[in-house]
Amino acid sequence: MLLSGGLDSSTVLSIALKKGYKVVALTFDYGQRHGKELESAKKIAHHFGVLDHVVMSLDIGRFAKSSLTDKSIGIPQGRTRSEIDSGIPNTYVPARNLVFLSVASSLAESIGADAVFIAANSIDFSGYPDCTPEFMEAFQRTLEIGTKAGREGSPVKVIAPIITFSKAEIVREAIRLHVPIELTWSCYRGGPKACGRCDSCLLRLQGFSDAGIKDPIEYEVR
Amino acid sequence: MLLSGGLDSSTVLSIALKKGYKVVALTFDYGQRHGKELESAKKIAHHFGVLDHVVMSLDIGRFAKSSLTDKSIGIPQGRTRSEIDSGIPNTYVPARNLVFLSVASSLAESIGADAVFIAANSIDFSGYPDCTPEFMEAFQRTLEIGTKAGREGSPVKVIAPIITFSKAEIVREAIRLHVPIELTWSCYRGGPKACGRCDSCLLRLQGFSDAGIKDPIEYEVR
Repeated sequence: MLLSGGLDSSTVLSIALKKGYKVVALTFDYGQRHGKELESAKKIAHHFGVLDHVVMSLDIGRFAKSSLTDKSIGIPQGRTRSEIDSGIPNTYVPARNLVFLSVASSLAESIGADAVFIAANSIDFSGYPDCTPEFMEAFQRTLEIGTKAGREGSPVKVIAPIITFSKAEIVREAIRLHVPIELTWSCYRGGPKACGRCDSCLLRLQGFSDAGIKDPIEYEVR
Repeated sequence: MLLSGGLDSSTVLSIALKKGYKVVALTFDYGQRHGKELESAKKIAHHFGVLDHVVMSLDIGRFAKSSLTDKSIGIPQGRTRSEIDSGIPNTYVPARNLVFLSVASSLAESIGADAVFIAANSIDFSGYPDCTPEFMEAFQRTLEIGTKAGREGSPVKVIAPIITFSKAEIVREAIRLHVPIELTWSCYRGGPKACGRCDSCLLRLQGFSDAGIKDPIEYEVR
């Protein structure tokens, strides 16, 4: 499974374990400015005792024109929900989930895994086109056609269990499954505390608020 | 474009230039035992004077169960054509072209490129499922659906100009376009000379033979 170290992927890891899967976690160091999430991913993987945690360097950040990988581009701050919902923001990293899912599928096929879990969400999200059910279906089709496992009738299955969850539902699921939320990191900035102003913080805070639960991590602004 | 340093991708580079494209070449160091092809890729890129040559580490070889990345697995040798055509051999690297095309598409979208060129071939090949027109179509669809460029109606286009060429046709095209064939490397082994016995050498030698042209590189066995 793809584990970034955020609230969503930590919850999906917990869901996969609950379903009885033995999990290998895969985390990418892709030049993200919030490299701090790598530390969270390691803590979460350790907490849950996964079979293996593969941390891979994949430097798409060297060319990606995105505020997540290029410090000369400002990360949007303090946007309203309708602003967040208005289009694809500059935090979009071209083809990121396509790249991540492809490598995860290569790993999965190599070790004989049944599935790849991804924490994509298409409800309380930043409008990224690679987080939608339609994209997951198209990607699944490429695995059916373009891999040996697919040709043999048993393609790696892409499972996106929270793709239609609201953020509040994700929060409640995290609580129910005892995810150590205090270890997760969602903020797009890599500061000492979560900024509370980027889209990722705003969506997360709104989710906790809607769920009636206090987010245990520290924020600069709440 | 994806440039491995072999005969096929060197020919496709030449085709793209001939069509008037300005080319950025992308080569992966993925743990292949024929790492020697990286040197060929650099020489070819330099020969043609591409805009940029990006060499990227992407260590899928650390987990891929393939004779191309794992020296404990033997590379098939001296197979007949009907043996080569009989199925997917152990040189298959799970989801390799999916991974490579995904990263290439990320790069292309980042720099505003129109297309990604790939030297996949589905005629004189080793039966890899990720070298077929059907796979290219499925992948194209994921780009249409899962990227910002796709959503805006101008997805990166996947172009596989030699996908239905025979190897002899590729050889003739290489000659016609003045590809420096002596600089290319196709052998799956990384020896001082091409082995002349692996599937890749056998297909290449047959192509030259069918084209009535002598392959200028040195072989251990011809």
